[in-house]
Amino acid sequence: MKFLNLLLLAIPISLALKLLNYSPVLLFVAAGLSIIPLAGYMGKATEEIAIYVGPRIGGLLNATFGNAAELIITVFALKAGLVEVVKASITGSIIGNLLLVLGLSMLLGGFKYKTQKFNRAAAGMHTSMLLMAVTGLIIPAVFLNTHTNPAAEPLSLGVAAVLMLVYLLSLIFSLHTHKDVFRPSQEHSETPNWSKLRALLTLLIATVFVVLESEFLVGGIEPVVKTLGISELFIGVIVIPIIGNAAEHSTSVIMALKNKMEISLEIAIGSSTQIALFVAPLLVFLGYFMGRPLDFLFTSYELIVIIMATVITAIISMDGRSNWLEGAQLLSAYAIMALAFLFV
Amino acid sequence: MKFLNLLLLAIPISLALKLLNYSPVLLFVAAGLSIIPLAGYMGKATEEIAIYVGPRIGGLLNATFGNAAELIITVFALKAGLVEVVKASITGSIIGNLLLVLGLSMLLGGFKYKTQKFNRAAAGMHTSMLLMAVTGLIIPAVFLNTHTNPAAEPLSLGVAAVLMLVYLLSLIFSLHTHKDVFRPSQEHSETPNWSKLRALLTLLIATVFVVLESEFLVGGIEPVVKTLGISELFIGVIVIPIIGNAAEHSTSVIMALKNKMEISLEIAIGSSTQIALFVAPLLVFLGYFMGRPLDFLFTSYELIVIIMATVITAIISMDGRSNWLEGAQLLSAYAIMALAFLFV
Amino acid sequence: MKFLNLLLLAIPISLALKLLNYSPVLLFVAAGLSIIPLAGYMGKATEEIAIYVGPRIGGLLNATFGNAAELIITVFALKAGLVEVVKASITGSIIGNLLLVLGLSMLLGGFKYKTQKFNRAAAGMHTSMLLMAVTGLIIPAVFLNTHTNPAAEPLSLGVAAVLMLVYLLSLIFSLHTHKDVFRPSQEHSETPNWSKLRALLTLLIATVFVVLESEFLVGGIEPVVKTLGISELFIGVIVIPIIGNAAEHSTSVIMALKNKMEISLEIAIGSSTQIALFVAPLLVFLGYFMGRPLDFLFTSYELIVIIMATVITAIISMDGRSNWLEGAQLLSAYAIMALAFLFV
Repeated sequence: MKFLNLLLLAIPISLALKLLNYSPVLLFVAAGLSIIPLAGYMGKATEEIAIYVGPRIGGLLNATFGNAAELIITVFALKAGLVEVVKASITGSIIGNLLLVLGLSMLLGGFKYKTQKFNRAAAGMHTSMLLMAVTGLIIPAVFLNTHTNPAAEPLSLGVAAVLMLVYLLSLIFSLHTHKDVFRPSQEHSETPNWSKLRALLTLLIATVFVVLESEFLVGGIEPVVKTLGISELFIGVIVIPIIGNAAEHSTSVIMALKNKMEISLEIAIGSSTQIALFVAPLLVFLGYFMGRPLDFLFTSYELIVIIMATVITAIISMDGRSNWLEGAQLLSAYAIMALAFLFV
Repeated sequence: MKFLNLLLLAIPISLALKLLNYSPVLLFVAAGLSIIPLAGYMGKATEEIAIYVGPRIGGLLNATFGNAAELIITVFALKAGLVEVVKASITGSIIGNLLLVLGLSMLLGGFKYKTQKFNRAAAGMHTSMLLMAVTGLIIPAVFLNTHTNPAAEPLSLGVAAVLMLVYLLSLIFSLHTHKDVFRPSQEHSETPNWSKLRALLTLLIATVFVVLESEFLVGGIEPVVKTLGISELFIGVIVIPIIGNAAEHSTSVIMALKNKMEISLEIAIGSSTQIALFVAPLLVFLGYFMGRPLDFLFTSYELIVIIMATVITAIISMDGRSNWLEGAQLLSAYAIMALAFLFV
Repeated sequence: MKFLNLLLLAIPISLALKLLNYSPVLLFVAAGLSIIPLAGYMGKATEEIAIYVGPRIGGLLNATFGNAAELIITVFALKAGLVEVVKASITGSIIGNLLLVLGLSMLLGGFKYKTQKFNRAAAGMHTSMLLMAVTGLIIPAVFLNTHTNPAAEPLSLGVAAVLMLVYLLSLIFSLHTHKDVFRPSQEHSETPNWSKLRALLTLLIATVFVVLESEFLVGGIEPVVKTLGISELFIGVIVIPIIGNAAEHSTSVIMALKNKMEISLEIAIGSSTQIALFVAPLLVFLGYFMGRPLDFLFTSYELIVIIMATVITAIISMDGRSNWLEGAQLLSAYAIMALAFLFV
């Protein structure tokens, strides 16, 4: 966290750049850097509040605001009409969590411990939930890509409703009917470190700044595309997910270094599942009400990288053990997929 | 079964509608409803006869006539030239068995028992057989979809021959060389409840009526499409498989409620395998001799839903345990896939 | 090996045919047959030398020259500008190793032993390595097939570099950091049977003849296509991989007959992994320097058969046991895929 705090310096820099109306590209960079620690504080504060309100509502809070920073960025992108960027960032979050976060965790954890073991049954449960979430997310795109009809919007809304329902059911499952199954892995924060007031204030202030910086960031996408020649798609698939999830990533790596690979897996897979079941359908609903219709019509390439990242994670996590080479392989899969997006 | 018996009342109603030449849409509905209990009686009678003739020929009978009702419906559809409906119903049977039947079984079973366990090894064997059956079924379509040549018919015939051969080999495997592996799960009917005569007569009468009602049903497809605005594809993918398999579905759910999830899995996966290895190739051969060439050229969407349903089932059944949420997830995957077919 | 030695007679025959400039089709056949035992001698000699130079460099030798015969054939094909044949033979090697070799091993092994068991963990590790290798190999093709841009060459070179890096890392893993995990399965050749001189001479002579016969073989592709009406694609996918890997195939089957299914699996999966991580990227680099640019732009059909063969192998090997039916199913999957290539 200490290193990340340095990035908070990007906040005054971004404000100065905005006031001076200087370089939009630099503003994009500063805003992006500043969101990284802010997202971390949002997550930390949510966890602290979650402890005060008890396991049930706390679990709900954690589950709902786990990807809050990313949600804020994508809402601004949606407002700005950057529909393709929003869809690309959904793809990028899923493959980033599965390949980059998990890969880095397994690689660095594997340097320290020869073989890291984790509960196969728990991993299997998370994986099958992820698989179904992903299936739900991509089925409409597969359908729309292979049929020529203009019903993308009603179909996407219908599917979003089903996904959201599954999300609610999975909350009932993990917080109510089967809460004992999920208990052990949430032991990493059971007594609050912060006072209630500090947690609430931190959440409030961090959120306000994330909103502000997200607006700067999204405003800078077009200038960055024009000036640096990077495609919108690349920003959506690679840059936004890394910014939005960096704090979470570091937690996952830290857990791997503590030989708690189970928590790393849970963070990576759980976060991807949440993107598919909660963030994506919510964006479809918001888009509908904002007059910026967002459909689930991902490109074939996006579909296939999502499927492959999911299957790889399933296969890797099924044997209940990891090592540095598996981490390197996940990272190389990420590198190859990212390389392709660079060539658009 | 008692509730299903009420549906037998649909037989006289369908006959009356036919004689009065009244509403073809109502005739479609009545015929469809009447097939549900009839298919159940066909299955029950076959099981009873199977006990009399001994495990080997009995196993053959069960394996061959397990999807007889659906086969009869699709043969009539083929005769009527509704080739797309036939192919859609092959797809629909596979995803219906895997997602709808298994989903409903796991959901309702999961309401009664917190976690249901089943033999992982047996499930794995059924699953890998399903996976290969599905691979064989879809390879020609994948090939034909990605190459422009008119060899669909000879290729489909060749592949049908290979699939049928694998089917025969799998019968030799399960009824002869490895019959002990499959024994335990077939314990649910070891002494006959019916006399030989009753079983034979029931089979005969039920089959005659299924043939009759199938003709009514298929004759009603066109009027239903015109009047109600439902697509042929939807009837093929959703309606026909539900009608043809409803009795089997109820057995699967009953077994889940008795905490015999292994039998539910076997019914759902076994039935799908049989569709791919026996019903589909048989229809290709019959189509060839009837002058109604049926090829394995499924649409890309059909291919992908078949693959995804198979992979989901494989992942779910691999951990050897199920709960209500997994059931709900399978059902939601089915709902999303069906939703898409509605929008054609 | 004794039967294979008979095929050495094809060497003088091929030389005579070449000198007499007789039938290029017969020359193709003779050259193909002669490569089968020569590839076997190359493999055997490499293994013997590997024992002399110690486990680490020996492992490196085995890993690098394991597919040497096939590499030589494809380099000649590349030199002759037969880029599609080269790509097809990469596909064919992967599916041939996974479906044909493993299928034959499981079928014949299964005739002798009712159920053959193997270490699930080791199989899982090989499989996940295969899965990632395949992912890396196909991602560029998926990308290029779904986007219209001419960056196939730089993307393929970049991906080849990443794959080669993963290959080096996997060597470090298996020969250095985790060498104990891989040890037990390499016990099949621990003391040399040949003198150092004999091994070196055999390797040298066999390699020289493989080079010669490969040139004859490649030179005969065009006449064979014209005369026999077989497509180039079929030669690339089916004929070349069988010729290049036949010796390895027979080792795999022999191990299955000795109930050492683990070694069969390792040969089949390991060889496929090596094709994806080492042979394919090496060919891309060689093509670049030879002015015969080879890209990773496989056809959709090639992609899908590679994916399906990989997934089937993963599912089959996950349960840690095999039987004759699984072998028959793998072979039938191979037959169906090959059938489709015949119809091009």
